[in-house]
Amino acid sequence: MIKTNLTIYLASKSPRRKKLLEQVNLTFKVLPVETPEIFRKGERPVNVVRRIALEKLNAAKEIIKEGIIITADTIVVINGKIIGKPLDKHDAVRMLKKLSGNTHIVYTGFSVHNSHNQKTITDYEKTYVTFRKLNSNEIKAYAETGSPLDRAGAYGIQDDYGAVFIKKINGCYYNVVGLPLNKVFQTLLRIV
Amino acid sequence: MIKTNLTIYLASKSPRRKKLLEQVNLTFKVLPVETPEIFRKGERPVNVVRRIALEKLNAAKEIIKEGIIITADTIVVINGKIIGKPLDKHDAVRMLKKLSGNTHIVYTGFSVHNSHNQKTITDYEKTYVTFRKLNSNEIKAYAETGSPLDRAGAYGIQDDYGAVFIKKINGCYYNVVGLPLNKVFQTLLRIV
Repeated sequence: MIKTNLTIYLASKSPRRKKLLEQVNLTFKVLPVETPEIFRKGERPVNVVRRIALEKLNAAKEIIKEGIIITADTIVVINGKIIGKPLDKHDAVRMLKKLSGNTHIVYTGFSVHNSHNQKTITDYEKTYVTFRKLNSNEIKAYAETGSPLDRAGAYGIQDDYGAVFIKKINGCYYNVVGLPLNKVFQTLLRIV
Repeated sequence: MIKTNLTIYLASKSPRRKKLLEQVNLTFKVLPVETPEIFRKGERPVNVVRRIALEKLNAAKEIIKEGIIITADTIVVINGKIIGKPLDKHDAVRMLKKLSGNTHIVYTGFSVHNSHNQKTITDYEKTYVTFRKLNSNEIKAYAETGSPLDRAGAYGIQDDYGAVFIKKINGCYYNVVGLPLNKVFQTLLRIV
């Protein structure tokens, strides 16, 4: 669906993002970049995810001199506070208790860069996610699977437990998985 | 997550519903039942999907005398009109043109029955889905894949094209795939 002679790189270590881009039949290579994800005090969530996506892009541009680069960063915000990835199972339980019975917001910032025309577009998507009330047994059982550990907010919407924890969402579903497919796709069309 | 000594049957030929129940690690058998899906003039969408789910349940109960049976039926409603599965590629194009740039509603009715205590629960879920404006090339290309043909409304939200056609949803995502996982799971917990 995207026509380009350039190689497309997904500069992300997230296996979910890789799977999502495969789902829309995009041909691309994965470039694992390492950048610290630091939250600055008082910085608005939309600015956080766009800044980190750009920082990841700058790191990727050090390695890739020719091609199209995609980067992304996802955070979860509840009651105005950013929650990142849990430190351990205990921390995952704490996060899930916060999400239980409440609505939180998932932000994903992304950057798309074309080395040929030197264009860079940075944008974001936000989705509201409402959890049903969870009981402590379900929370513990889910934390025990280890699955929440590498996820912002300590859950995966596409997980076995994650799927049955969520009552409703408002916005882009794929944004909650880790990459807003529709918006990223439209951005790629504009940049190639 | 569901504890029962009874065999659970999914009485549906939909490969998507099978995949969804596998995703939440449910152990079950598939029972392909055949029932005509007839829409009655003036019948409200919520009544249509609940009635058809019950009709499928009655057909399944003829075959399965012991166990837990799950049935479901999904329809798409736009401007108050029900659209079912497209008749052919031409019909799929017509449906997708209607959905383009608009919001429609996906209804899934489902029935869960336990032969042991003779309990039956029938319920439904509804989700609003907003398509971005599609161009006729994308519509044609998607119809050509053949993928829209066995889907109510002529699209699959989890398809390659489907995923990038959708701007936002409001409600349960899995309902749009074909089975509202959270609600079905909660219903199973109540009935076992």
